[in-house]
Amino acid sequence: MANKAAIPDKMTAVAISTPGGPLVLKAERRDVPKPEAGEILIRVKAAGVNRPDVQQRKGAYPPPPGASDLPGLEVAGEVAALGEGVTRWRVGDRVCALTPGGGYAEYAKVHETNTLPVPAGFTFSEAAALPETFFTVWHNVFERGGLKAGETLLVHGGSSGIGTTAIQLASAFGAYVITTAGSAEKCEACLKLGADRAVNYREEDFVEAVKEATEGRGANVILDMVGGDYVARNYSAAAVEGRIVQIATQGGAVASADFSKLMVKRLTHTGSTMRPRPIEVKAQIAAGLEAQVWPLLASRRVAPVMDMIFPLTDAWRAHERMEEGEHIGKIVLDVG
Amino acid sequence: MANKAAIPDKMTAVAISTPGGPLVLKAERRDVPKPEAGEILIRVKAAGVNRPDVQQRKGAYPPPPGASDLPGLEVAGEVAALGEGVTRWRVGDRVCALTPGGGYAEYAKVHETNTLPVPAGFTFSEAAALPETFFTVWHNVFERGGLKAGETLLVHGGSSGIGTTAIQLASAFGAYVITTAGSAEKCEACLKLGADRAVNYREEDFVEAVKEATEGRGANVILDMVGGDYVARNYSAAAVEGRIVQIATQGGAVASADFSKLMVKRLTHTGSTMRPRPIEVKAQIAAGLEAQVWPLLASRRVAPVMDMIFPLTDAWRAHERMEEGEHIGKIVLDVG
Repeated sequence: MANKAAIPDKMTAVAISTPGGPLVLKAERRDVPKPEAGEILIRVKAAGVNRPDVQQRKGAYPPPPGASDLPGLEVAGEVAALGEGVTRWRVGDRVCALTPGGGYAEYAKVHETNTLPVPAGFTFSEAAALPETFFTVWHNVFERGGLKAGETLLVHGGSSGIGTTAIQLASAFGAYVITTAGSAEKCEACLKLGADRAVNYREEDFVEAVKEATEGRGANVILDMVGGDYVARNYSAAAVEGRIVQIATQGGAVASADFSKLMVKRLTHTGSTMRPRPIEVKAQIAAGLEAQVWPLLASRRVAPVMDMIFPLTDAWRAHERMEEGEHIGKIVLDVG
Repeated sequence: MANKAAIPDKMTAVAISTPGGPLVLKAERRDVPKPEAGEILIRVKAAGVNRPDVQQRKGAYPPPPGASDLPGLEVAGEVAALGEGVTRWRVGDRVCALTPGGGYAEYAKVHETNTLPVPAGFTFSEAAALPETFFTVWHNVFERGGLKAGETLLVHGGSSGIGTTAIQLASAFGAYVITTAGSAEKCEACLKLGADRAVNYREEDFVEAVKEATEGRGANVILDMVGGDYVARNYSAAAVEGRIVQIATQGGAVASADFSKLMVKRLTHTGSTMRPRPIEVKAQIAAGLEAQVWPLLASRRVAPVMDMIFPLTDAWRAHERMEEGEHIGKIVLDVG
């Protein structure tokens, strides 16, 4: 194909030169990856920045076996080449994808089943902001947590990429949404996205707020990335038969809780991490998203909340922004 | 009916005269209960003794609203009278039942759907030893924990009533069973019941034993009544996607655990208590038991392990026996 000839041997990528602060992120020349059977090569236009990238940069979250050592878990761009046996995509298609790493680069390869079309009317930057949070929220809130219309979702970190996605999806699917955030401005943003109640955790106890908002019943599903003392408080804020889904433990992994509460209320405490899951599992999640969520994006009923966009080679600034914690929504790298 | 005329107004029952040690259990004269619509009155021949009875005697486990203040969560006997609308049973039928309380008495009333036939060839004492542990194990290991053939079950307290039931049922349904118990004698008893591996927890670390027995994979389902430091150790002993079901916290309700382990291994930690569940839920569990487990009892493929039988009015001795912790299997009261 004509486009195929245009693929260079080398590309610019941002690598972790050594574990450390944001400034260890350095532009490098790397070989353009070659798509294996079932994979596509994407000419990256934009790449999303996520909390696990920061952990990886610090040396605390090594890439899974076989994955690129470059950071970056999601990209959007054009299909540049097809590996053997790829049936769904053609060179030139506008796609976004969940990658096991390697997103901070001009080219990235990914399995064709872990790839979705850029929703109609979306920019590449918006599309690059979708995969990581939408795969994570869909799987953990709806598949693992089993949230149903009419139930109450408590989502912590409401102004984060995960939080803004969870608020919009849960609200679109008919749940009552309570969220926590760290400032009045962030709470305001959450309410605008469809949260029914936003709790400023610096001023208010979320357990009391949830009980008040649910007439004492509690939350049916809780999406938590905090851990630490939130675990015990989640058990208190959960309804009978409530499901608590742990997707990170930013406030501490080891914590104390009252397990008689888990038992008496018949809670289910579970959790998952997305990155190490096999391609087949991610393909199933992608299929669910395309069928049930992508139509909501095309109609703009749901859209990613965009915080700031930085050039690829300024990835260190994007990490600084994330670590300052002032962002609302997604931070994205423009790869051009 | 002729039998109906034989029901006296008063009966002997053993009541908790005041919260305290075994000797607070005292025989009293009480009114014979009157079955409401949908209930049957059972002329009790034998009543099972369970750990929650001990908790209730100490004042730590109050009966749910509407339940008898008398201890006793399971009985076997003959149907003595029918409440309005009862269709399944006839006066004189040999039955055993899960009662919400009131079992330590000559008569007890219970909803007809929470009642099962005495399995063919079973004595009343054996039948009285079934309901509490079989409802608990069936619901928590198979329904809530989803144990499947070929999976590994770790059950703590293997020589208890719950433990001996879980070992037999899991083994009968094709699981690999690992259990913990506190002496060589108890371990031996567990192996005879069908456990594939019995761990003397006073001499061996169960986490290491489970890993060794499963070639590092861990247990798919863990049934735990200990809590305390077992919670963190259960997270270590569980397989990826393992389910941990908490049915008591005898070793402490408040404990510390590593929730990143729960997340990374995608564990599910849940639990339940049987007594406060509504009649309809218990009826569903009874239906599952009758269809899938009662045939195993009739064929003696599975049978309750009987520890000792005491006369009803010596219930205090039964509690002493349970609190000494030397029993293997079920302690039952003979009501005559």
